[in-house]
Amino acid sequence: MNVLIVYAHPEPRSFNGAVKDIAVETLNAQGHTVVVSDLYAQGFDAIAGPRDVTQRLDPERFNLGHEQAHAAKTDSFAPAVQAEIDKLLAADFLILQFPMWWFSLPAILKGWIDRVFAFGVTYDFGRTWDNGVFTGRRAMLSFTASAPAAAFLPDGKNGDMERVLWPIHAGVLALCGYQVLEPQIAHGIPFVGEKAMLQMLDQYRKRLHTIDGETAMFFHDSKDMGDDYRLKASVKPATPAQHRGQRVHMV
Amino acid sequence: MNVLIVYAHPEPRSFNGAVKDIAVETLNAQGHTVVVSDLYAQGFDAIAGPRDVTQRLDPERFNLGHEQAHAAKTDSFAPAVQAEIDKLLAADFLILQFPMWWFSLPAILKGWIDRVFAFGVTYDFGRTWDNGVFTGRRAMLSFTASAPAAAFLPDGKNGDMERVLWPIHAGVLALCGYQVLEPQIAHGIPFVGEKAMLQMLDQYRKRLHTIDGETAMFFHDSKDMGDDYRLKASVKPATPAQHRGQRVHMV
Repeated sequence: MNVLIVYAHPEPRSFNGAVKDIAVETLNAQGHTVVVSDLYAQGFDAIAGPRDVTQRLDPERFNLGHEQAHAAKTDSFAPAVQAEIDKLLAADFLILQFPMWWFSLPAILKGWIDRVFAFGVTYDFGRTWDNGVFTGRRAMLSFTASAPAAAFLPDGKNGDMERVLWPIHAGVLALCGYQVLEPQIAHGIPFVGEKAMLQMLDQYRKRLHTIDGETAMFFHDSKDMGDDYRLKASVKPATPAQHRGQRVHMV
Repeated sequence: MNVLIVYAHPEPRSFNGAVKDIAVETLNAQGHTVVVSDLYAQGFDAIAGPRDVTQRLDPERFNLGHEQAHAAKTDSFAPAVQAEIDKLLAADFLILQFPMWWFSLPAILKGWIDRVFAFGVTYDFGRTWDNGVFTGRRAMLSFTASAPAAAFLPDGKNGDMERVLWPIHAGVLALCGYQVLEPQIAHGIPFVGEKAMLQMLDQYRKRLHTIDGETAMFFHDSKDMGDDYRLKASVKPATPAQHRGQRVHMV
């Protein structure tokens, strides 16, 4: 298969860099074709805006979605964006490799999504979820977190990790049709020490050998969703962020 | 009070721009001092990395947290970062104004957080949550979402908005000590039409007049948290992301 690893860390000799290297080495050895987008090394411009396109639909007023749709139709994405789109569309398996900063992606990786997951390319009206562009392809987050795993347990002080990851798992990957594999998380980096870090690399290497056989996480598909943008009354919510209980923060 | 509005939209004539203008006008008229960081207009560099500091702790190997802590001690943040830190530290009320892209912040605003919420400045060992740097100050998200509100109800196809917002509400703002107010959300932009959009601006204007009296959302504080990074057994989880149920995505 074709694998794209989008890697976002400012330091090549970081643990994130080592995890990325393990994936490249292991997947290559299995005969897969691996492409890496090393966003820091490429100096990837992460700011979605007028620079994304070479030809404007509306030169007076910039609307990102409209301009992306126009660029998709007229083949007028900026070369740096088009190059990443090409890699993404060629990949059967997408791995995002990053340090979790502020419970989320580093800005350079968020900007890669803002610009490369363009309207008219990776999603469109009616082309989302199981009708999405990437149906049949797989994606996975692989990241480091400085906090220990306990802090992200359901009753952890930081909140349940699967709820923390919902905006990326659901809002980016599943929404565009990907089968999303469970995340690869290295907790407590660098506090756990070198031995534990080497064990994590080894565990990841082993996981990658059998990753083809893994079952993806569950997301509701279009047959579960009503025309009112909600789950049908007959559907029992079965994901980390959907429920029929009371809200606690918002009215 | 001193208000900082961090505004992230590529188009000044966008609805986001209008919402930001309403806030400036309304808060100024009440006698508050309002400062705006207009990230796109400033050309804010959103990529955390070696450019954040003028003096390296470790010139060989870049670790963001270590370099931020060093810069905080030696007063050696890059001028563009220091300027934003100064504005942030002066603000009693922080408003983040943005279009929700991919269930999260635009990269330019995430990068503002990555760089400006620096270790040693906005948080430190033991200086988090109710012991945080910003204790007694308030913060709020104000954003547009193209999807209608129904899509983000508890059983909405996109998941419960309060769970979607957890990484920002808890992972950035409450973790640094802020009292977090309920978000100001403009749903269905631009599909709802001009009349509805003008009503939203009007509703925001009215809200801002009495925002001083609003009650902040609840987050567990340090007295609820055990040394094992989890809520104490006697504490009933009472936020959108903490619970004692089963996980559904992760083992």
